[in-house]
Amino acid sequence: MNGTSSPTQTQVDHHTAEMMKKTAVLVDGVVLNGPIIDSEAGERFVEEAYRIIMEDAVKKATDVKEKVCEWQPPEELKKLIDLELRDRGETHQRLLQLCQNAIRYSVKTSHPRFFNQLYAGMDHYSLVARFITEALNPSIYTYEVSPVFLLVEEAVIKKMIEFIGWEGGDGIFSPGGSISNMYALNLARYKFYPEIKERGLYGGPRLVMFTSEECHYSMRKAASFLGIGTDNIYFVKADDRGKMIPEELEKEIQRAKQEGATPFLVCATAGTTVLGAFDPLDKIADVCEKYGLWLHVDASWGGSALMSRKHRKLLYGIQRADSVAWNPHKMLMAGIQCCALLIKDTSNLLQRCHSAKASYLFQQDKFYDVKYDTGDKSVQCSRRADAFKFWLTWKAIGTAGLEERVNRALALSRYLVGEIKKREGFQLLMEPEYSNICFWYIPPSLRKMEEGPEFWEKLHQVAPVIKERMMKKGSMMVGYQPHRGKVNFFRQIIISPQVSREDMDFALDEIDLLGKDL
Amino acid sequence: MNGTSSPTQTQVDHHTAEMMKKTAVLVDGVVLNGPIIDSEAGERFVEEAYRIIMEDAVKKATDVKEKVCEWQPPEELKKLIDLELRDRGETHQRLLQLCQNAIRYSVKTSHPRFFNQLYAGMDHYSLVARFITEALNPSIYTYEVSPVFLLVEEAVIKKMIEFIGWEGGDGIFSPGGSISNMYALNLARYKFYPEIKERGLYGGPRLVMFTSEECHYSMRKAASFLGIGTDNIYFVKADDRGKMIPEELEKEIQRAKQEGATPFLVCATAGTTVLGAFDPLDKIADVCEKYGLWLHVDASWGGSALMSRKHRKLLYGIQRADSVAWNPHKMLMAGIQCCALLIKDTSNLLQRCHSAKASYLFQQDKFYDVKYDTGDKSVQCSRRADAFKFWLTWKAIGTAGLEERVNRALALSRYLVGEIKKREGFQLLMEPEYSNICFWYIPPSLRKMEEGPEFWEKLHQVAPVIKERMMKKGSMMVGYQPHRGKVNFFRQIIISPQVSREDMDFALDEIDLLGKDL
Repeated sequence: MNGTSSPTQTQVDHHTAEMMKKTAVLVDGVVLNGPIIDSEAGERFVEEAYRIIMEDAVKKATDVKEKVCEWQPPEELKKLIDLELRDRGETHQRLLQLCQNAIRYSVKTSHPRFFNQLYAGMDHYSLVARFITEALNPSIYTYEVSPVFLLVEEAVIKKMIEFIGWEGGDGIFSPGGSISNMYALNLARYKFYPEIKERGLYGGPRLVMFTSEECHYSMRKAASFLGIGTDNIYFVKADDRGKMIPEELEKEIQRAKQEGATPFLVCATAGTTVLGAFDPLDKIADVCEKYGLWLHVDASWGGSALMSRKHRKLLYGIQRADSVAWNPHKMLMAGIQCCALLIKDTSNLLQRCHSAKASYLFQQDKFYDVKYDTGDKSVQCSRRADAFKFWLTWKAIGTAGLEERVNRALALSRYLVGEIKKREGFQLLMEPEYSNICFWYIPPSLRKMEEGPEFWEKLHQVAPVIKERMMKKGSMMVGYQPHRGKVNFFRQIIISPQVSREDMDFALDEIDLLGKDL
Repeated sequence: MNGTSSPTQTQVDHHTAEMMKKTAVLVDGVVLNGPIIDSEAGERFVEEAYRIIMEDAVKKATDVKEKVCEWQPPEELKKLIDLELRDRGETHQRLLQLCQNAIRYSVKTSHPRFFNQLYAGMDHYSLVARFITEALNPSIYTYEVSPVFLLVEEAVIKKMIEFIGWEGGDGIFSPGGSISNMYALNLARYKFYPEIKERGLYGGPRLVMFTSEECHYSMRKAASFLGIGTDNIYFVKADDRGKMIPEELEKEIQRAKQEGATPFLVCATAGTTVLGAFDPLDKIADVCEKYGLWLHVDASWGGSALMSRKHRKLLYGIQRADSVAWNPHKMLMAGIQCCALLIKDTSNLLQRCHSAKASYLFQQDKFYDVKYDTGDKSVQCSRRADAFKFWLTWKAIGTAGLEERVNRALALSRYLVGEIKKREGFQLLMEPEYSNICFWYIPPSLRKMEEGPEFWEKLHQVAPVIKERMMKKGSMMVGYQPHRGKVNFFRQIIISPQVSREDMDFALDEIDLLGKDL
């Protein structure tokens, strides 16, 4: 191994040091000649670390024969990864060990047995794009510093808008679906009351928004953060399947109006977090039209079904939305984060609503067309080149390849449902619409018990124990939660094209193996 | 070159295909056996792309003999990078070309002649950490999916709090200083009116905040986004140097009170964007104490001076702040984005203010101590592991190395100031406090003109033309802007330890060369 000593910044080779002394310029006791970083040693370190990353964080991390996680309790792990930040730097050898340990004890979210979150899998094209942007370290606000990535963002947004079915529109990539949802709220209220930008909510009407009780928790966060308040979210009843009931929406709107409040926005969900339910967008759009409300669709999770001719009907009516949040980092594996907020408006609403016209950044006397300096549409200043990774994957596998991934994930989840139905001790909560498969595992000791309070109380304790066991073993990861009066159940998410039928069978076998003594 | 054809997802080698047919499980016409991604081909692609990234985006990008940018106007560039997303994927060979072009036409922000923004330079340790997190693709909300990165975030926050000088505190990494500032506003108003979380601003008092006229434009964005409104930012006069005048702050607070408004927060700036000015924190803290206001310090840019025993006096009084925004991705080169919002409170305010208690993510019946599931402190759901890259750099070069970088950047900027003073045709706007060096270049044709309206009008046009010429030549990048009644001037930012005295001399020579005919 090369570079066993760290190239501390004062190190330069002897010859250079001699030369420098002769012409040295000193200010405040600091020698100003030449760089103080040994780039060659730095590049050697990158090369050495890259080999470890490829082996441990790419190849092994996706190898079904390896563990999905190497569990350590927090207090143990603190010792194992040597967190302390010291006065002096470490050697390259030591740093490589630290990197190895960081990888070792991290969860392998790209592993075929990782079913725990709404993201999973390894897309090599997206990974390359991410390496490129990390190396180039761009910030996406002006064409002068980010020419390629701003054009790529524009192209990706245009294409995503096509898939929504709008004739035109606008959009921006944001750091997460939660922030995208905030954008939608802010745009909607600005559209109705542009003076809000200057005056704020003080002295204005009581703004009320509507979303289903199955919406993502970011709606609560957004309402609080934007000064609307969670009391002014009117939660609309969902049916047993988790879909917003349009008639109930209308009732809530009428209730708000009777109270003298001012409805301004409905947020429908396309792909709820727990059940994977799709609100009936077309009917909700009818209600929004009737009452003149902004329709936002939180399709952070379900939006990717638009790529599939077979499954896009789940989002029928989305073309009537005013705004859509859609995260390609979930089902389409673009890497965290890759989240678009798309809007139908073509009157430069994003810019008008969010601009602050910083004169040091958005000079109007530049030598190129400053309409490409789109950063003032954002509530951020520095912003990452998130569209690029999705763009490269799309280039690599085409629309057809993205479609195939969605179709395959949904076909696999149908297979899993079939197996759950066949197996003793497994009970499906409901037929899925998307790739969230929700089920209970009922251990043998509970199978003959009557489904009364004691049964549910005992069943509630099963999933957490199985989860603990699978993590300590490192064999798989799947989430569980209680939901709407139902005791803890597993929610298995299927995304990755690295996953196969064999992994579905394994997941059920493993849960049975880990839980049959409970 | 290997892998000239793309491993479209339906490709598998012949033998495997034969085997699969025999035991194939079909659902909805999709074969579910085995993965549909050819991981080996994918890994080969990563290897091939990595070589290009190392050569073009790391080595060449930091080589002073190469161009800092390869300018193309938007319409030309669109053709050169083939933006279109098609139905079918491209070959690996073609994808590698696309990657090469994306790198070629991107600005090299790590180049020693990039002085354009508040970030610059190449830190190889941070880069390695970023490659690791991209490969692992974590999301930072629960210990179960991000054990290492959550602990690292905790350790880094603790250490940053030490440098601020608090005895304890809390914090979170956010996607940008703008978002950090929003956090501060939301925390401050929640602290005084916890019911805001539920009730919103409707029917409440008129909240007023104070910041200097030199503050970052994100304060306007934050006030609008959070429903406070830009009219309720009372901008406090700054002195000629760009520093908030504490007496003027007090006047503004009294004015707001006389109007019956409710002051709640003062945002001081430590390192303003254009002039690099530091507000007098200690005196501002006195005023905040007197009126019981939350003191937030936007030290996104200047916070890194805390690493230097020599320069930390610029932030004297920061230990009295209630919250601090500090971006290690700027002066400390951690890579975009790496932004901490730090708060002095130890009563779990972040959690109380932002939590939504999603039961599918923050289950309370987990088998480990759920206090490590810190994601509910955030307004995001998915969140990147931004602390890790700063942690690895800190490990690599130690506090001493970080200090050396700050000292060196400031020493270099003092050298540049000296040279500006010596040279004919260069005029410094003011002595710098930090590494923002603001100056005019006065071409020979204007040097004998009287400093009247015509002179200023002509001088205003000089910087944009020189900027255009340097970009088209690709020799360097430095920003310009008009500011507070002053016509366009250059603002050169010095950060990178790859930069040396020679680059300072070059910058001035080059501006003269490009502008002497104007």
